[in-house]
Amino acid sequence: MADQPTSLVRYTTDAGAEVAVLTFDHGPLNLFDQEMFDAVMANVADLTATPPRAVLLRAEGKVNSAGVDVHVFDGLTVQQGADLWRTLIAGITHPLEALPCPVVYAAHGLTLTAAFEISLACDIILASPKAKFGLVETVVGLTPSMGGPQRLAERAGSGRARELVMTGDLYDAQTMKEWGVVNAIEDNLDEVARSLTERLAAGPTVAHAATKKIVAAWRSGGIAHADEITSEVSGELFATDDLRGAVKSFLADGPGKATYTGR
Amino acid sequence: MADQPTSLVRYTTDAGAEVAVLTFDHGPLNLFDQEMFDAVMANVADLTATPPRAVLLRAEGKVNSAGVDVHVFDGLTVQQGADLWRTLIAGITHPLEALPCPVVYAAHGLTLTAAFEISLACDIILASPKAKFGLVETVVGLTPSMGGPQRLAERAGSGRARELVMTGDLYDAQTMKEWGVVNAIEDNLDEVARSLTERLAAGPTVAHAATKKIVAAWRSGGIAHADEITSEVSGELFATDDLRGAVKSFLADGPGKATYTGR
Amino acid sequence: MADQPTSLVRYTTDAGAEVAVLTFDHGPLNLFDQEMFDAVMANVADLTATPPRAVLLRAEGKVNSAGVDVHVFDGLTVQQGADLWRTLIAGITHPLEALPCPVVYAAHGLTLTAAFEISLACDIILASPKAKFGLVETVVGLTPSMGGPQRLAERAGSGRARELVMTGDLYDAQTMKEWGVVNAIEDNLDEVARSLTERLAAGPTVAHAATKKIVAAWRSGGIAHADEITSEVSGELFATDDLRGAVKSFLADGPGKATYTGR
Amino acid sequence: MADQPTSLVRYTTDAGAEVAVLTFDHGPLNLFDQEMFDAVMANVADLTATPPRAVLLRAEGKVNSAGVDVHVFDGLTVQQGADLWRTLIAGITHPLEALPCPVVYAAHGLTLTAAFEISLACDIILASPKAKFGLVETVVGLTPSMGGPQRLAERAGSGRARELVMTGDLYDAQTMKEWGVVNAIEDNLDEVARSLTERLAAGPTVAHAATKKIVAAWRSGGIAHADEITSEVSGELFATDDLRGAVKSFLADGPGKATYTGR
Amino acid sequence: MADQPTSLVRYTTDAGAEVAVLTFDHGPLNLFDQEMFDAVMANVADLTATPPRAVLLRAEGKVNSAGVDVHVFDGLTVQQGADLWRTLIAGITHPLEALPCPVVYAAHGLTLTAAFEISLACDIILASPKAKFGLVETVVGLTPSMGGPQRLAERAGSGRARELVMTGDLYDAQTMKEWGVVNAIEDNLDEVARSLTERLAAGPTVAHAATKKIVAAWRSGGIAHADEITSEVSGELFATDDLRGAVKSFLADGPGKATYTGR
Amino acid sequence: MADQPTSLVRYTTDAGAEVAVLTFDHGPLNLFDQEMFDAVMANVADLTATPPRAVLLRAEGKVNSAGVDVHVFDGLTVQQGADLWRTLIAGITHPLEALPCPVVYAAHGLTLTAAFEISLACDIILASPKAKFGLVETVVGLTPSMGGPQRLAERAGSGRARELVMTGDLYDAQTMKEWGVVNAIEDNLDEVARSLTERLAAGPTVAHAATKKIVAAWRSGGIAHADEITSEVSGELFATDDLRGAVKSFLADGPGKATYTGR
Repeated sequence: MADQPTSLVRYTTDAGAEVAVLTFDHGPLNLFDQEMFDAVMANVADLTATPPRAVLLRAEGKVNSAGVDVHVFDGLTVQQGADLWRTLIAGITHPLEALPCPVVYAAHGLTLTAAFEISLACDIILASPKAKFGLVETVVGLTPSMGGPQRLAERAGSGRARELVMTGDLYDAQTMKEWGVVNAIEDNLDEVARSLTERLAAGPTVAHAATKKIVAAWRSGGIAHADEITSEVSGELFATDDLRGAVKSFLADGPGKATYTGR
Repeated sequence: MADQPTSLVRYTTDAGAEVAVLTFDHGPLNLFDQEMFDAVMANVADLTATPPRAVLLRAEGKVNSAGVDVHVFDGLTVQQGADLWRTLIAGITHPLEALPCPVVYAAHGLTLTAAFEISLACDIILASPKAKFGLVETVVGLTPSMGGPQRLAERAGSGRARELVMTGDLYDAQTMKEWGVVNAIEDNLDEVARSLTERLAAGPTVAHAATKKIVAAWRSGGIAHADEITSEVSGELFATDDLRGAVKSFLADGPGKATYTGR
Repeated sequence: MADQPTSLVRYTTDAGAEVAVLTFDHGPLNLFDQEMFDAVMANVADLTATPPRAVLLRAEGKVNSAGVDVHVFDGLTVQQGADLWRTLIAGITHPLEALPCPVVYAAHGLTLTAAFEISLACDIILASPKAKFGLVETVVGLTPSMGGPQRLAERAGSGRARELVMTGDLYDAQTMKEWGVVNAIEDNLDEVARSLTERLAAGPTVAHAATKKIVAAWRSGGIAHADEITSEVSGELFATDDLRGAVKSFLADGPGKATYTGR
Repeated sequence: MADQPTSLVRYTTDAGAEVAVLTFDHGPLNLFDQEMFDAVMANVADLTATPPRAVLLRAEGKVNSAGVDVHVFDGLTVQQGADLWRTLIAGITHPLEALPCPVVYAAHGLTLTAAFEISLACDIILASPKAKFGLVETVVGLTPSMGGPQRLAERAGSGRARELVMTGDLYDAQTMKEWGVVNAIEDNLDEVARSLTERLAAGPTVAHAATKKIVAAWRSGGIAHADEITSEVSGELFATDDLRGAVKSFLADGPGKATYTGR
Repeated sequence: MADQPTSLVRYTTDAGAEVAVLTFDHGPLNLFDQEMFDAVMANVADLTATPPRAVLLRAEGKVNSAGVDVHVFDGLTVQQGADLWRTLIAGITHPLEALPCPVVYAAHGLTLTAAFEISLACDIILASPKAKFGLVETVVGLTPSMGGPQRLAERAGSGRARELVMTGDLYDAQTMKEWGVVNAIEDNLDEVARSLTERLAAGPTVAHAATKKIVAAWRSGGIAHADEITSEVSGELFATDDLRGAVKSFLADGPGKATYTGR
Repeated sequence: MADQPTSLVRYTTDAGAEVAVLTFDHGPLNLFDQEMFDAVMANVADLTATPPRAVLLRAEGKVNSAGVDVHVFDGLTVQQGADLWRTLIAGITHPLEALPCPVVYAAHGLTLTAAFEISLACDIILASPKAKFGLVETVVGLTPSMGGPQRLAERAGSGRARELVMTGDLYDAQTMKEWGVVNAIEDNLDEVARSLTERLAAGPTVAHAATKKIVAAWRSGGIAHADEITSEVSGELFATDDLRGAVKSFLADGPGKATYTGR
């Protein structure tokens, strides 16, 4: 167990793109106690203040996370409960989703409650074959409240979301992949996740941010609203060095030769 | 064939939770004629007036339902047609969805039109391996109008929803499971459906109602709106005996020992 | 390679229903250069002006389309870029979706960028086993901007949509079918696609148009709004010859004997 | 006091258009007891089944309505309360709004709670100078629940809506006009209301229905969604005798000579 | 100037209802520097944790607030800027709106930028005749970012909102009242604001919270979604002592005799 | 009458900001025939391709516009009608609204149908005291279809919008100002409109574009969605020379001394 419950490491890839890796490392269960929540919020604030070109979230230890330390809920009033969730959505879920770069989550083992909800605020979720997922808040008479049920429903439909939350059962990685929740299952999860993150970081990250804006407009405003903003969001890319350079490169040398700086 | 086209039976499980079972039992085909619609509306009104802690919808007979008796449509004007659907959405679809407890649908055989649309207003759908599903309203020049196409699209995407409705084809349980429409296929459907309903009834049903509110906010207002209401909806759970007791139980005895009263 | 980059052929089926077939036929790659975009917009305007009872989109050549000719993007300003997309959404995506009849897309081979986005504006997508799909705009530092990401997310969930767009990878027909993007994979694609289109054309096409309206209301306004319009949209069908005739036919001769004229 | 709490009278205007007048006439206060609610629901069902070309809602007596008879609320459970409102929204609010013709409300005096909420489901509200309006449900610890607060907010903004509902104060006709709730104040209310209703009935009522559809799409789905449906909704008018005849008339004889049949 | 930039005072009214008064008192201009933002966030968190039955926001000094101390913006990166606004919306705007009781804002003088945006997150705004309002962020090349433009548009329409923000002009209280932004102009502002707050606090505050939920559902999800939740939100009031007692009181003694405890 | 039905003049103000003036000048009535629609579409495309820092729309002649030349509607099929509106919304309404700079409309006289709808796609509308406004499409059995009814409802509420459209009456400038449709009435309209346009052009036009994005997100996705995008949209302003320079200028020299370049 590390001194700090999370770490945030930044490095530059061989392709010259900055990547950040946020690692949960808080005892054998990576329980989300208040210290852990505070650490993740601080890391996410750091990423927001100086975003890299891609982010990887991962965990050390046998499990990805056994979820929230139940002491956090003990004795809360209605308003303290509401305030807890508002703070966590505003400090973790929303800023993670608003990062102007791809965010990858690597789930290497059991991934419960807060950790699963955090993964659902990431762009892409990779899992090891033995990973298991659950929103087991029913065990303490609660519903998941960091945005998980709605994000699960958006990826998998409301029927599956209600089942997963109401039963509080665990679901394996294969089922989550079939549901569109997990993007891929990888034997060498850590290596593949790092490699994908680095690959995305080396790409046209301003275009990735535009993709995120269009998909976010759909998630909250529907197809018509996403269509309404698309031409303007996409138009702005034509001022980027990345698009201009890549078009020139394509016309001169064919596809796949362009390099990107994220500007 | 029973005297009444439907029955509503309430009982208390061994765990002390009230469950209600609404059964279609209207001749060999469980056809939805006006008498059947009226009976279902009356049962749903009864459930709304005094909600149990979980509900199971099922059918007697060889088929779950062969759909609507076409005589119902014969000779209707534009306005009578509109009124028919408004009444059925307001009398069946919406109040079923608004029940403050889990609602399970068991589809043991052929499940057509009105019955399939009703199942899509339930939280969880279980099916027997031989069940088949269809919205075959095209056979009379109609589109399904109790809310089915939009609920199918929400679970399975618009492409599959348009295909199913436009072709009027039958789809087997396995396909519906892959689409996220059916939650699970069970050989002993009746037994498993009852068991799941009883298990959900014995759980923290106020939390289940909160889950339904959050998912419903997403279905009509998108991710941003669901996020907006989450902290308040979830905060209210901290005043329930169920949450308070379960937190104490978890901290004292570990997970899975708590019992719930639905308050 | 044909004289014109696209063709629009109308014919009447044995069942007496008019079908239109829009074919891409623009060199070995069916590249979308300005001439091709203009031709598709003209064909779609023609279909809008005089809609048949069903439409099939398909392509000649080894590939369905290798996507957009990158010269189209060369040297555009921010505003020219925005204008390009606004024109294409307004000239292709939206009117295709607004056609008051079923629209089928047949993807027989590689289907990239603009062609894939156009297919996502169709009601049903069929694919040959060897078809591959990609939104590879990242190769020129762009994001797909004819409405593709939001329509992909609506069918497959946002996680898969972001992955497909950000990686720029190719996905095979089987994966697209599992995601709910492709409706079916067919060995004899051309034959099956024509047959399905003709079958839909011979059906109650006013009811199909009503289905499209309800699903479109859901796509942009959510479940509550789709419910709100359903009774009125559906009520109007009771004035059609197709519904009235089909109800009479059903009651007299049983299901499947009715014929439809689209009125 | 009449035998029936409401009356529905249909007549044909000099211009040949059918108008319906729904009158509240239930004792000195026009209190909404269950009998009154049932009568209004029956009248609205009649209008839905056979819609005229315009509708006028008005009341006999000194007041328009003193609101709901509080006995209706006495002893209701949570679920009976929810069921009461669902039935009234589905039986009055929604079908009134869905009528395919203009609906005018004449408020000649005090117009409280249910009556004010019903007026907000009408297209146009006229008032006499001495009319007063209030949603005074706070007097029994309730919030208005037939759709009033949201419709008030939609016309006047959320600040005014919350003030009117939370204070439970009465507001005069002039204030309601300034807020955009009342359309006009008329000394000869009955005469002017009848005259406006007859004038609208004699107009292009299919076009009025299209206007209602577009505004309704905006009310639930926003500007982008209303834009999305406009071209299709409006396009359908080009098949009406009314549009075709009026265009011919305009080109031949100038504006204002066309007559309309509502087809 | 007080020791603390804000104060939060709670007291019990003669009617036995707890009221809280949050006062800005930070030098002659009540400038929002970081200390002031932190103090308001702490006060709002306190209100959230233990909500009274009504809240009044007011200010000491000659002006209500001259807005944000521009030093706060100096040298921020894109991400620090985004983070600033996200924190303020999550720490002030959203929890103020989510308080389960009426919130009144008293604007006694110049009310600029952050203060005006905060007032727009309150339920009711009262102003003195000489109060002036402005969102003058254009003076530093910014747009108001605590939710002001959208809330202004929701109350006054988008045309007025864009004008007020783009010109950066000051608007007097009378204009704001005509726009529906200010609810009332009062000579004895402090006295009237306190009196209104106390009156609302003594009312059925659970019903007020229900009103806020319905209006909030409309603000983010439109009329159809607000209708969808109304029956359930309102139904829950039938379990409150306040409704049950007020119904009994009304039937026994007529209107206006009931007292409320907020439960 | 000019050679061309419209003119687009660009010039640089004394403050160094480019302004564009689009003038309708098409005979005594400025009728919108196809030539006029084409000219406006071309001008708007020009503005989109190279946006100035502010735009003024105005008209020469006695009237602003008497609306659409009815010949345009003569003999159209349903699909041609739908296509007409789709083209005009996509070619005028949407790109005008998407211009990344303020757009002012000056209505100096009678402003009917298409012209009124175009004004509603502008940010700010100024009017002369004698201007009159109408959406008189009912005179030919139509409803306004360039987005007018929904934009009128958004500014003035649905009650006023339905009245204005259904009656087809003319409304004077004062009424439109009270409704929030017209922003201001000016005796020297041309001078004031030019002056306002130039003043806005000389301001922080990137911030104005951000304001437009936030308000547009509200118009189509509601308050929650506008809040969701605010921090990101506003954060991007911290990279502009305009914000950075204005903050420095404010801190050094006080408010009002900053100059802006639109970058």
